[in-house]
Amino acid sequence: MPERIVIIGGGFGGLACAQELGGTDYGVTVIDRRNHNLFQPLLYQVATAALSPADIAEPIRKTLGRYRNINMIMAGVIGIDVDRQQVLVDGGDRVDYDRLVIATGSEYNYFGKDGWRANAPGMKTIHEARQIRQRLLSSFEKAERVHDEQEKRNLLTYVVIGGGPTGVEMAGAISELGRFMINRDFRNIQPDQLKVILIEAGPKILAAFPEKLIDYARHYLEKIGVEVRTGERVLDVTSDGVTVGTEFIRTGCVVWGAGVKASPAHRWLGLDAVPGGRIPVDDHLRVVGHHNVFAIGDTADFKGTDAKPLPGLAQVAKQQGIYLGRLLNNRCADLTPFVFKNRGNTAVIGRNAAIFDFGKWTLKGRAAWFLWAFVHVYLLINFEKRILVSVQWIWRYLTRQRGARLIEERSIGESDGAMPSVVICQVTGPGGDR
Amino acid sequence: MPERIVIIGGGFGGLACAQELGGTDYGVTVIDRRNHNLFQPLLYQVATAALSPADIAEPIRKTLGRYRNINMIMAGVIGIDVDRQQVLVDGGDRVDYDRLVIATGSEYNYFGKDGWRANAPGMKTIHEARQIRQRLLSSFEKAERVHDEQEKRNLLTYVVIGGGPTGVEMAGAISELGRFMINRDFRNIQPDQLKVILIEAGPKILAAFPEKLIDYARHYLEKIGVEVRTGERVLDVTSDGVTVGTEFIRTGCVVWGAGVKASPAHRWLGLDAVPGGRIPVDDHLRVVGHHNVFAIGDTADFKGTDAKPLPGLAQVAKQQGIYLGRLLNNRCADLTPFVFKNRGNTAVIGRNAAIFDFGKWTLKGRAAWFLWAFVHVYLLINFEKRILVSVQWIWRYLTRQRGARLIEERSIGESDGAMPSVVICQVTGPGGDR
Repeated sequence: MPERIVIIGGGFGGLACAQELGGTDYGVTVIDRRNHNLFQPLLYQVATAALSPADIAEPIRKTLGRYRNINMIMAGVIGIDVDRQQVLVDGGDRVDYDRLVIATGSEYNYFGKDGWRANAPGMKTIHEARQIRQRLLSSFEKAERVHDEQEKRNLLTYVVIGGGPTGVEMAGAISELGRFMINRDFRNIQPDQLKVILIEAGPKILAAFPEKLIDYARHYLEKIGVEVRTGERVLDVTSDGVTVGTEFIRTGCVVWGAGVKASPAHRWLGLDAVPGGRIPVDDHLRVVGHHNVFAIGDTADFKGTDAKPLPGLAQVAKQQGIYLGRLLNNRCADLTPFVFKNRGNTAVIGRNAAIFDFGKWTLKGRAAWFLWAFVHVYLLINFEKRILVSVQWIWRYLTRQRGARLIEERSIGESDGAMPSVVICQVTGPGGDR
Repeated sequence: MPERIVIIGGGFGGLACAQELGGTDYGVTVIDRRNHNLFQPLLYQVATAALSPADIAEPIRKTLGRYRNINMIMAGVIGIDVDRQQVLVDGGDRVDYDRLVIATGSEYNYFGKDGWRANAPGMKTIHEARQIRQRLLSSFEKAERVHDEQEKRNLLTYVVIGGGPTGVEMAGAISELGRFMINRDFRNIQPDQLKVILIEAGPKILAAFPEKLIDYARHYLEKIGVEVRTGERVLDVTSDGVTVGTEFIRTGCVVWGAGVKASPAHRWLGLDAVPGGRIPVDDHLRVVGHHNVFAIGDTADFKGTDAKPLPGLAQVAKQQGIYLGRLLNNRCADLTPFVFKNRGNTAVIGRNAAIFDFGKWTLKGRAAWFLWAFVHVYLLINFEKRILVSVQWIWRYLTRQRGARLIEERSIGESDGAMPSVVICQVTGPGGDR
């Protein structure tokens, strides 16, 4: 019987590891509660109606289907039995492993205020991106219909919490989407009624970037109408607004892009995680104290050469996945410790405006924006997605139109033409249909 | 003040009518509870994971935004006040009109069994198509995981109710999707465990087509593994199966493609509708008994030259919308009665297999399939959608892969990695976000 490797999580890290093990003598099983791998760096474009979910999501089975030694289970993991070497999944099944790879990523951290989650979706899943898209587009439709001037302005106020790349990208995209759409397609609202507020608790936005890029980004954001507020802390998020200090800001939509924490995988191992929930690993990505368990990506607490934990980036997860796949494989007899090669850090701010930090040199403006677009198309998983995204970007560049401005209606019932005002729906787990 | 024309419904008919009136002296208002126009003939491809919703849906505002004399209101209509010449919409507003166009389309008829709707979604809205896609893909994932052989087979049994073009298209597409996917991407289920059953209460499928095309379609369906049952009546639809005669068929997913009825617009006018709910109109599409109210498309009971009501097809609605727009416009002084020009009736059965009925001649097989594809790409609303759909079809033709195999997860919460097994969500009307 072949040695069994189980990989929990089909994100950038897990998938890269699995692909390295494709066609080998191992029996590999990938477990994920989603059926797809999501290209998260472009998720904000789904949320702002520029791309469709399927453009940036690829079924894990489709990617791995060609390798007959790899099996996929769509299930949620509920625990790990280290003694019996088994992963426990929902429904009661146990999956045997000889070696285990944990690549379960990270999730948004609402700082213990889980009630905020429903009012301020993050940018981690397709469901959340669609929720934001739905709220954004609906708020424009509502504002077009209301008669009260103040209510119009409230509906057209958008708050983005968190000044990292995701927050900056969202704020810029909402502002550009809104202004163009209002100008062309609406009759009872004006572009100057739109307000986008980006709130960052720390002293500066894009804290990981060099000062001059931050200045550029901040000025560009302000130029396209984003109000950037740093050093302000959000105290509450309700269904109709955000409390910042003593001020209550009424909004049409709130987006969460603040802190991130690792998935709760450390609890499955009974580990005390480091702050942020990451699992301590040695320089070969082996979980400290476990000879046959490995952790990669956002789940792993791996210190870089500067003794700081590596950032939660796709490129880190991918490089670690490839390294671990090769290590397990031993194809390369690669026993040197993992070293992260920084490919550059980037954020896009708006049309023709992005920033790149390559450590030794930086790039900003239109050239950075084109580079950003090329790199991201290239990183998409297959040729079809690359063509689809390219077509939509070129179209959008030429027309400024966004193709996926879809407000999804509910199932339209028998009521006499009107939408039901309240529907209660029951949703079941991943096997469910809603 | 310009004369006010209100159009209820932004489907094929309403939109064609509005476009004819774009740039004229009229003040035109289009009211729709959806924000988008949906290209329904391709909705079955969304349901079977071949296309994304946004590929076949275009925001009504985007289509009409360029005409400054046209206004759009996203709202549900709840009534018409004929005396005051006002349309009543949800939220309490009233929209004044001088002339009114009713283009509210049709909906599925569950023959009074509205409880069936949730268990057997139809093919009218994006929400329904996504629901079907979700159920289909989830049933494969569940079947891959269950150990009981009979349960596997139950999950892999799909029932399509209604043997019209939609039912035939769905049955063919499910069979092709399933067999290819199982073969390539699954390990614990086999293609021969898949069963697709097409149930038609009448004596034959595709009743509107000539006999020889019906024979071809039936044989082709059987060749690709669809069990075609005619003359059988569905007596009950529950969440886990369908009762046909004395037999209970357990299924992984049920699709409804049976009877259609007109929207309930006739009630707004206090009219006794004809059977099927259509509104009687004269030969200029004017509602009988109303000098300034018109009805087009699936809502109108317009008799063709053979004294039979025209079929509920996109081309009928579109031709009537254009005719009425010109009539109202009086640009062409076109006061001759409306005459429907039949452009041909078509249905697609599978890869390389479609049928066309042009009245005098017919076409079937691969040539018909290519013609079908060309015609449908051409009919899409703009250049971007045409490119997007073409790319995906060419890719699919070459690889047999379907790009939109997306099972959308719920918002992933704090629970320890497992999906919540039951979530209760509250949904509000068109302004809501879920």
